[in-house]
Amino acid sequence: MYRIIATWKFALSAVTMGAKVLSSGGRALDAAEAGIRLTESDPDIDCVGLGGFLNRDGELELDAAVMDGDTLKTGAVIGIKNYEHPITVARAVMEKTMHNILVGRGAESFAREIGIESRPMLDMITPGARKLWEEKRAEKAAASGHDTIGFLALDSHGSIVSATSTSGMGMKLPGRSGDSPIIGSGFYAESGVGAASATGWGEDIMRTCMSFRMTEMIRAGADPQKAADTAVITACETMIRHGTKPREMAVICLDADGRIGAACNHKGFAYVTACEGGEPTTVDVEPIIDKDTL
Amino acid sequence: MYRIIATWKFALSAVTMGAKVLSSGGRALDAAEAGIRLTESDPDIDCVGLGGFLNRDGELELDAAVMDGDTLKTGAVIGIKNYEHPITVARAVMEKTMHNILVGRGAESFAREIGIESRPMLDMITPGARKLWEEKRAEKAAASGHDTIGFLALDSHGSIVSATSTSGMGMKLPGRSGDSPIIGSGFYAESGVGAASATGWGEDIMRTCMSFRMTEMIRAGADPQKAADTAVITACETMIRHGTKPREMAVICLDADGRIGAACNHKGFAYVTACEGGEPTTVDVEPIIDKDTL
Repeated sequence: MYRIIATWKFALSAVTMGAKVLSSGGRALDAAEAGIRLTESDPDIDCVGLGGFLNRDGELELDAAVMDGDTLKTGAVIGIKNYEHPITVARAVMEKTMHNILVGRGAESFAREIGIESRPMLDMITPGARKLWEEKRAEKAAASGHDTIGFLALDSHGSIVSATSTSGMGMKLPGRSGDSPIIGSGFYAESGVGAASATGWGEDIMRTCMSFRMTEMIRAGADPQKAADTAVITACETMIRHGTKPREMAVICLDADGRIGAACNHKGFAYVTACEGGEPTTVDVEPIIDKDTL
Repeated sequence: MYRIIATWKFALSAVTMGAKVLSSGGRALDAAEAGIRLTESDPDIDCVGLGGFLNRDGELELDAAVMDGDTLKTGAVIGIKNYEHPITVARAVMEKTMHNILVGRGAESFAREIGIESRPMLDMITPGARKLWEEKRAEKAAASGHDTIGFLALDSHGSIVSATSTSGMGMKLPGRSGDSPIIGSGFYAESGVGAASATGWGEDIMRTCMSFRMTEMIRAGADPQKAADTAVITACETMIRHGTKPREMAVICLDADGRIGAACNHKGFAYVTACEGGEPTTVDVEPIIDKDTL
């Protein structure tokens, strides 16, 4: 038995690839990496890897993370340039170092030292991404766009993995990290319990450690759907209580039995899921709470 | 009524300064920043700011974070060079940007742009830190030393803040981040509820989001001492269950009534605390569980 759930419609190719890995008995970690690499290489996906959103200075800086629920080890890179596959560098941080997180220059040096193939940043900036950046710059946009692939996989060995990859918010300040590479906020996984991931305004998602909260709720016996709903409602209510209007947030989660949950506070969110004996399916998610009427 | 608790004996000067700010009705945020700036400037404190541990390449790369429990806003910098006061840059990230985290080059550019005074890295590397690095390099040490100032403050207005600053682990790979600048792991704060911080092997602390766990336990009604004990015991038990031997971890927490808790899994941990009408006091903490006999 295996199960995958990943954020956004654009995850279809990643989930299809992941399902191929898992249906032949492969590992969740390999499924997540192989799937996300496809997303990272797709120039038409504007918020992850090649073709992703540019920062304020017109640079492509990428973030990615992975957590192996078997060991609770994690690997993450933040603000890495000149690498097409931050997910692969993140996995190498997890597997080949004693550390969990490498940022910026250090992440690039590490990738180079262990022989991961680099790719010039300019080569990964698509005409569309450049045009969007020029438009946003002209209108002095502070930030725009903020989606992430969050990929949760349970394999037939019972291993659970959570992984993310993103270019981060468009027009972000150089070096900005959202929730995606931050454990407990953008991702969490524990084999035998469950996994979770989030996408949206990372700065808001972090405030209530949404992914850790979902996983802890599943540990305490909650159905994943209940965990997802609660994480979004609690995040919104907590922010309102502290005088801040919540922005877009969406979450997915998975338990050790392969049950899934998803929730959001805005229209337009969807996830892709796959399991034993079925085709990958895209599911639209109705908001459990509406950020605009809070 | 005010209360401060901070990690390690070396926090005495920071807590004394913080108490001075709070006893005259000042804000928790100002107390935390003023206190931590003293620690950052002290050449004899070998794990924070000036005089801190060097990375593998002999560079001083600093991390810091702050969370304002009134707004749940946070600011953090990771792997910043050439700035003596990462806590001040972290606070500026929180107060002057729409972001929460800036890493490496980006954090340095931001600090420069808003006019925070820089200081050449070489000027902040003490002879002692250089000698230690040379010794560790000679013995090919993978890593060594890993303490952080974690500083929790409740002010007379009811505001709660959690803040951290560290040079990170000695001999770390360039760009490595531990738990200190990671929300939910190294720090968390919510006014009306409580705050928490952690120190030790950041890679282990992150695995169970110790600071968020403590704050959530306090929210659910736990006494802070119980929350601290549980965070350490749960972290150790969770790691053992997943096949990993826990390394040094120590935590502190504080609730909205000014009650405090502290726990560790090794000998030698101490905290400093101060409250209305008393002198700052250093307290040794007995391990609640022993990492070496697990």
